[in-house]
Amino acid sequence: MAQSDFSFSHSLRVRWAEVDMQAVVFNGHYLTYFDVALTEYWRTVGLPSPILQAQLGTELFVKKASLEYHASAKFDDILDIGVRCSKIGHTSITFIIEIYSNEQYLVSGEMIYVFFDRQQQKSTPIPLDWIEMLDLFELSTPIVKKS
Amino acid sequence: MAQSDFSFSHSLRVRWAEVDMQAVVFNGHYLTYFDVALTEYWRTVGLPSPILQAQLGTELFVKKASLEYHASAKFDDILDIGVRCSKIGHTSITFIIEIYSNEQYLVSGEMIYVFFDRQQQKSTPIPLDWIEMLDLFELSTPIVKKS
Amino acid sequence: MAQSDFSFSHSLRVRWAEVDMQAVVFNGHYLTYFDVALTEYWRTVGLPSPILQAQLGTELFVKKASLEYHASAKFDDILDIGVRCSKIGHTSITFIIEIYSNEQYLVSGEMIYVFFDRQQQKSTPIPLDWIEMLDLFELSTPIVKKS
Amino acid sequence: MAQSDFSFSHSLRVRWAEVDMQAVVFNGHYLTYFDVALTEYWRTVGLPSPILQAQLGTELFVKKASLEYHASAKFDDILDIGVRCSKIGHTSITFIIEIYSNEQYLVSGEMIYVFFDRQQQKSTPIPLDWIEMLDLFELSTPIVKKS
Repeated sequence: MAQSDFSFSHSLRVRWAEVDMQAVVFNGHYLTYFDVALTEYWRTVGLPSPILQAQLGTELFVKKASLEYHASAKFDDILDIGVRCSKIGHTSITFIIEIYSNEQYLVSGEMIYVFFDRQQQKSTPIPLDWIEMLDLFELSTPIVKKS
Repeated sequence: MAQSDFSFSHSLRVRWAEVDMQAVVFNGHYLTYFDVALTEYWRTVGLPSPILQAQLGTELFVKKASLEYHASAKFDDILDIGVRCSKIGHTSITFIIEIYSNEQYLVSGEMIYVFFDRQQQKSTPIPLDWIEMLDLFELSTPIVKKS
Repeated sequence: MAQSDFSFSHSLRVRWAEVDMQAVVFNGHYLTYFDVALTEYWRTVGLPSPILQAQLGTELFVKKASLEYHASAKFDDILDIGVRCSKIGHTSITFIIEIYSNEQYLVSGEMIYVFFDRQQQKSTPIPLDWIEMLDLFELSTPIVKKS
Repeated sequence: MAQSDFSFSHSLRVRWAEVDMQAVVFNGHYLTYFDVALTEYWRTVGLPSPILQAQLGTELFVKKASLEYHASAKFDDILDIGVRCSKIGHTSITFIIEIYSNEQYLVSGEMIYVFFDRQQQKSTPIPLDWIEMLDLFELSTPIVKKS
């Protein structure tokens, strides 16, 4: 994909505490960046927050995460994090995430979440209105930029 | 793989600050756990530390990371993190990592590192003595447990 | 002090990974927030970045940190972090920092940094032009808001 | 105080992800180290865990934290973290914490916690049996070392 292929992008600046002795962001912090961008994506689409979901007895759990590191983010870099919902299964949602800085391609990843019912202690179908909202959002052409 | 298939295992206890509102370890912290276990694996095999490597002008960078979440680690859990070197390429090394707690299988992952020459700014062959040390270590039968 | 007494304020949103099982930000993360706000304060005043300082052989080290917790920040809260340079000593600089959310007073702190010469391995005088720039900035009346 | 003045000490090794570009532990991570050591102190004294406290409707919240940085911890350093309960008030408990590495004095701090009743949303007296257990533990002469 290219940076322009994302209908949503969130920007943040790399913090001092996130950079290691190699002068690059420690590999694990990209999952925090993914999480921050997904939270903003979720809010922008208008889906219920994790707090509200918990009150309803449901949760989204990460089932799989994969990351590919192409180039390194450095201290003070402003990162543009593109998020796209790439697949909605019966009980799971998949996101493609790509991080750019100054149009340089840094990191790509895929996150698969499972929707979970706390009381029944098992996965449960993704609500139909979520699917509609996600479809509608991804079909919308103008890029939504947040920072 | 099974927990007994690892010739190396490192143990650590989940910290309060690593657990989120869902009462489970935040998904990104497992990459920190992987890194801690790999550091101890590296030390046990007898390979040069990142500090020494940097003095020699080389570095290991993560190229790919993948994680699969089977069950959640909780506050105060003692995690046993198995590490196995599964593949040594020309300029890359691959590790299989699995996290258990009380013999319950929690998280599995694969980490691919590339060996990098800072001056030439490109990947460089894994030293032959590293390959020998890794081969020798993985062939050794007794499990090395560290905590 | 009151929120309006700060000539500089930086805003950020609390991340999921920063919130613990008590549903509040873990106490140590406020020092990361302080650091982020100080970085932006430093940039706004126009002082040399840590990267540039390191090239010149100097560093700022934290000597003392103190925090008082009045109320808790929660997931998704937008925090306004006021920063004021309260004292410039011969080799040290002191900052007062206060965190607000929706005008509620959450956390206050004081950070004392020492200016350090790496080659001589000892503290060294704060440059005169830094003192002038800090004085000038703190005397400026309009509040500089960054997010 | 000296390292030998503590009746409790917990050891841990500095992680790669905790060290910044200045090649020292980022200042905020010491509060995580304090928290880890306090958790082990608490367990060793035999006091109820935060999980159990939450079930009883109570919580310990940090009210004040202060840190003084004497020397820097580095990657791979093994830290010895001494914990002493220095004061028990009506609704608060104060701890003195000191971090050493190879008998070098690195960081000292004081943490003041308030005991809180969730239902009444206010501070509540420290249970008498806690005070007895803490007194008894601090009076015991042999040093308890944990790692």
